[in-house]
Amino acid sequence: MEAVRGHLLASDNASGVHPEVMARLAEVNQGHVPGYGADEVTQQALARFKALFGEQSETLLLFNGTAANVLALKGMVQSHEAVFCSEEAHLQVDECGAPEHFVGCKLLPVPSLEGKLSLAKIEQRLAAERDVVHRSQPRVISLAQATERGSVYSLEELRAITAFARERALLVHMDGARLANAAAALGVGFAEMTADLGIDVLSFGGTKNGLMMAEALVVLNPALQQAYPYIRKQGMQLASKQRFLAAQFLAYFDNRLWQRNAANANAMATYLAEQLVQFEQVRLSAAVEVNMVFAQLPTAWVEPLLQHTPLLVWPGEAVSEVRLVTSFDTCPGDIDQFVHHIDRLSRR
Amino acid sequence: MEAVRGHLLASDNASGVHPEVMARLAEVNQGHVPGYGADEVTQQALARFKALFGEQSETLLLFNGTAANVLALKGMVQSHEAVFCSEEAHLQVDECGAPEHFVGCKLLPVPSLEGKLSLAKIEQRLAAERDVVHRSQPRVISLAQATERGSVYSLEELRAITAFARERALLVHMDGARLANAAAALGVGFAEMTADLGIDVLSFGGTKNGLMMAEALVVLNPALQQAYPYIRKQGMQLASKQRFLAAQFLAYFDNRLWQRNAANANAMATYLAEQLVQFEQVRLSAAVEVNMVFAQLPTAWVEPLLQHTPLLVWPGEAVSEVRLVTSFDTCPGDIDQFVHHIDRLSRR
Amino acid sequence: MEAVRGHLLASDNASGVHPEVMARLAEVNQGHVPGYGADEVTQQALARFKALFGEQSETLLLFNGTAANVLALKGMVQSHEAVFCSEEAHLQVDECGAPEHFVGCKLLPVPSLEGKLSLAKIEQRLAAERDVVHRSQPRVISLAQATERGSVYSLEELRAITAFARERALLVHMDGARLANAAAALGVGFAEMTADLGIDVLSFGGTKNGLMMAEALVVLNPALQQAYPYIRKQGMQLASKQRFLAAQFLAYFDNRLWQRNAANANAMATYLAEQLVQFEQVRLSAAVEVNMVFAQLPTAWVEPLLQHTPLLVWPGEAVSEVRLVTSFDTCPGDIDQFVHHIDRLSRR
Amino acid sequence: MEAVRGHLLASDNASGVHPEVMARLAEVNQGHVPGYGADEVTQQALARFKALFGEQSETLLLFNGTAANVLALKGMVQSHEAVFCSEEAHLQVDECGAPEHFVGCKLLPVPSLEGKLSLAKIEQRLAAERDVVHRSQPRVISLAQATERGSVYSLEELRAITAFARERALLVHMDGARLANAAAALGVGFAEMTADLGIDVLSFGGTKNGLMMAEALVVLNPALQQAYPYIRKQGMQLASKQRFLAAQFLAYFDNRLWQRNAANANAMATYLAEQLVQFEQVRLSAAVEVNMVFAQLPTAWVEPLLQHTPLLVWPGEAVSEVRLVTSFDTCPGDIDQFVHHIDRLSRR
Repeated sequence: MEAVRGHLLASDNASGVHPEVMARLAEVNQGHVPGYGADEVTQQALARFKALFGEQSETLLLFNGTAANVLALKGMVQSHEAVFCSEEAHLQVDECGAPEHFVGCKLLPVPSLEGKLSLAKIEQRLAAERDVVHRSQPRVISLAQATERGSVYSLEELRAITAFARERALLVHMDGARLANAAAALGVGFAEMTADLGIDVLSFGGTKNGLMMAEALVVLNPALQQAYPYIRKQGMQLASKQRFLAAQFLAYFDNRLWQRNAANANAMATYLAEQLVQFEQVRLSAAVEVNMVFAQLPTAWVEPLLQHTPLLVWPGEAVSEVRLVTSFDTCPGDIDQFVHHIDRLSRR
Repeated sequence: MEAVRGHLLASDNASGVHPEVMARLAEVNQGHVPGYGADEVTQQALARFKALFGEQSETLLLFNGTAANVLALKGMVQSHEAVFCSEEAHLQVDECGAPEHFVGCKLLPVPSLEGKLSLAKIEQRLAAERDVVHRSQPRVISLAQATERGSVYSLEELRAITAFARERALLVHMDGARLANAAAALGVGFAEMTADLGIDVLSFGGTKNGLMMAEALVVLNPALQQAYPYIRKQGMQLASKQRFLAAQFLAYFDNRLWQRNAANANAMATYLAEQLVQFEQVRLSAAVEVNMVFAQLPTAWVEPLLQHTPLLVWPGEAVSEVRLVTSFDTCPGDIDQFVHHIDRLSRR
Repeated sequence: MEAVRGHLLASDNASGVHPEVMARLAEVNQGHVPGYGADEVTQQALARFKALFGEQSETLLLFNGTAANVLALKGMVQSHEAVFCSEEAHLQVDECGAPEHFVGCKLLPVPSLEGKLSLAKIEQRLAAERDVVHRSQPRVISLAQATERGSVYSLEELRAITAFARERALLVHMDGARLANAAAALGVGFAEMTADLGIDVLSFGGTKNGLMMAEALVVLNPALQQAYPYIRKQGMQLASKQRFLAAQFLAYFDNRLWQRNAANANAMATYLAEQLVQFEQVRLSAAVEVNMVFAQLPTAWVEPLLQHTPLLVWPGEAVSEVRLVTSFDTCPGDIDQFVHHIDRLSRR
Repeated sequence: MEAVRGHLLASDNASGVHPEVMARLAEVNQGHVPGYGADEVTQQALARFKALFGEQSETLLLFNGTAANVLALKGMVQSHEAVFCSEEAHLQVDECGAPEHFVGCKLLPVPSLEGKLSLAKIEQRLAAERDVVHRSQPRVISLAQATERGSVYSLEELRAITAFARERALLVHMDGARLANAAAALGVGFAEMTADLGIDVLSFGGTKNGLMMAEALVVLNPALQQAYPYIRKQGMQLASKQRFLAAQFLAYFDNRLWQRNAANANAMATYLAEQLVQFEQVRLSAAVEVNMVFAQLPTAWVEPLLQHTPLLVWPGEAVSEVRLVTSFDTCPGDIDQFVHHIDRLSRR
């Protein structure tokens, strides 16, 4: 592949680290401190999480998002239990079987609409599985906010899911790999989408929104908290020099960096979508609510586009679908450059 | 605990990040690159590992040492197989059951002498277990270089172990959390202790010797390589922004930073030991070969010492044992300060 | 539920044990023999399996069918690998997550036609998953002969599947819970459907066809054989008084009991189907090839039928589907009695 | 090996099935009944267990003892927790890593005295592990009654263990593979050794005492009961033709067959020991409390003895140890025949 210039639209993890995060990492790199979280920087970060999510919450810092999701489930289900998720859920599609192997549970993927779970379909499946000894017993609903299709659950939709779950003795896990983008899109804070609505465990993403490598597991349901420190250790996610995870979150929360980053990424996706719809050969295949654009375009364009940037492609015969993702540091020039390529292709 | 000043002797992971590593992290933080290792920084780091360990080696970058050890074993044994290790091995003692849970295998701890495995004891145990269908089948010898007791296997000792293993169809895993310290102590390079001697899989440590968070799995035996990329992903250790792991290793190898760091830590431990033996109430309980000092001292001193610095302690009635660990940035003043405390305690 | 009279159509495991099997169990109950299979009765049974499946085959006796399927897979895949199966496969639907938990792998259910796998759909899925590090790597095709929908793969269909698998470096597992019924239906022996066609590992059923509790794992591919004795032990399926598993198979093979039993069950299903199609409110929803009849009938009939016999039901609004299964000891009178109920319901 | 005549002293699973058990199996082999335990024979057996262990107990029938122990633990610990057991425990020594693989937990073997756990050693280990995040968290004490060394805990000893456990928030599992032999030795019923003392989960053995293949999991602690039916299914131990497990227990409880069988086995071991001690070259290496004799004898005798009967041997230089096990059907003539061999060897 020829050298890629500018900012990619491949994924929000193609981006680097926000300068304020890098500065904070350098700042905490002073002297010695006790390892494994018994240091002041980590304590400060954990206090910030408590301030955001409530005193009853407990947070554990992790290296990456796969672990956040899998460890979350490990503390919520036993191996004979099952987890509802969307057929397009990262958990189901892109974790190389980590939930099955590490948790031992079964995933019950249900068809989604624009990435969102359908309670009717869950209800149906629940009736077929519950109390049948030959079947893994449903215990958790795992949803992504924002979803893998770039949609955002409204607060009402989330409230409906947690109410549904409570009535049926199910727990709710939220995969918040792009939680900041969802919060920016809805114009709300983190707790309004999570703690306030009865989410039990949250995978709180950071890496896709300007951190280097840092995610958090926010355990909102106190009844589930005791085991997680051991699950983290057994799950191979207990960083010894924990302050360097913590520092990333301190920078993230200071001056609402998370919001500035997410707002930019979202805005750039909207800008990109506005440009794309002006090409008659291009059709948006999902509403643009956060920092992802799903577009259908001529299959003949795919190869030339991939020459310039790696992209996720769902190939079709005449028409293919591509996923374009903007980042905290995507700028209008990046979009314009991409649209320029599209323009040239459209004129061939 | 009152604020700790200076450099701790608690563990080498109490230290921070070497400035050259921090600088390299900042340097690679330019623009966008493809994720998950398909970037040039990662490719450069992997090339450096090949240069060090041979073209036939394959390296995978990971977040931390627990994962390096556990994922190493995952690719070496099936769940009905077993792993010989020292009774004091980190694997056995300090991983919260991660090998048992993630690999499903059984550990067969054997008594060690100064942290080193005894081939005679392994031979004995092997005879009792092999081909007995009720027993997990021995498949791997896992040794630590340097050991958890601060000893270093000589090249001859290592050669004896790999020869023993080959004759008995066993594989050899090396836990190299402190590999640089061992290399510095022996005055050899990495390959001389590993690839040249027939080690199959190496956990290559970095975090304890000046990196922020980065370890590597060096798969030296080509027959074992194919599965590891998937094991890493399923093991929740595939970093998306991989360049920030890779950069740490680039700095580590440049200008032999690893050696400078390890040599300093080792020298400081020697300096510390020299001071300690001058107190009649203190006895070294293990030879000082790398950056660890094991010392027996009056139990009455333990509490006052812990007021100043966290330490690993094995409490006894009149006499207790403590572990003192020096780091890449420990300086003579840190030692002198500690010895000053000891001196005051000795005069009470 | 009121006492059930006569032979149920609920499942072929509602039946008891064939008298010849019971007699053989009594016959081998003489004196003491070494445990865990080192006895002559077991050796005789294993020799019979070798005679049937070829000298290169190795067989392990097990307690039940869940174990046969799950242990089969355990020896065929690593945890980061995946298994294609039908969406209706027992493995996927009715094992309470045992494959996921015990093997750690991912199942990749593909839509089936009348219970049979579609190679086109497997091909499509294979292309999407293979060599993508975020995805469990396909390694096995698992098919049921006969299928859960009562259909039977022809030898040509099986040959197409094994050829497809070989070309793509996949292994093939056959769930033969109703293998005898399939053999009787096709008029072939066991090897013609399995060893001769390149099946790698076979779950050889017995319990559903007149045994008390006994299944076998027939490992046809020599490259896979070494680990299975340990997998059986770790899988909690090594019977100490093994002769009582072996005796069941000796009776099963003597005088082709397996065939007599299966032929009767199949014939009774055909007889039942012939009666049912005479009712205008009843429609067969699958071809009757072995001992299962799938029929659609008025939902209003379901409750009254369940008063007389437990049945598997897929409830619908006006029309529901039921599964009726005949056994080695089902006799025409049992069918007539059931049809009599149907007749009464049809006249209401 | 030449044909073995008479009753072996190899193990109590070398014996066959008691005739009353065989008769009951034949008796329940009438007609069809619903599978998986929804039949009257199973309901009767479960009622018998409730009568024995109390209305609050729940029992699940299983195929074998490995499963009873492993599934018991699966319902008692999470994977980050640990189980204390004797260094000689079957769990630790002879299950091919099944607890580690199926439960994912860590076993913490502690040195035993004559097979019995030492609370002092458990207390010591508990202090070292508890609340340390790097260590698997102790949760269960697993003890065998009778022990693998043929000793029997007194009621006082058991009471001390359960009291110790309660005070430290530990659960207690009893491996009762030879529970009947212990009950016969103590002259008590089952509940007096288990439910009455606060045992949480019991592996209730049958196969070693005259059953064909049947064990039971008696879950005495109501708080643990809910998950076990699913654990049994996921653990591949749910028999479809459940009545043939249940019938064995009905015969076992009728006319106290369990007691008659165990009393005979115990008496024969005593008789054997009395004979053996008359040889000056033979020394009993453990007290004979149930149906096992551990004896030290000249290593030169081992080969000749093994010509006549398989035996468990712990080989030594001049003196070796053997284990001799009597069964429900061992008769004085079997002992005399064995002692005759010993006598001949002693005169060489």
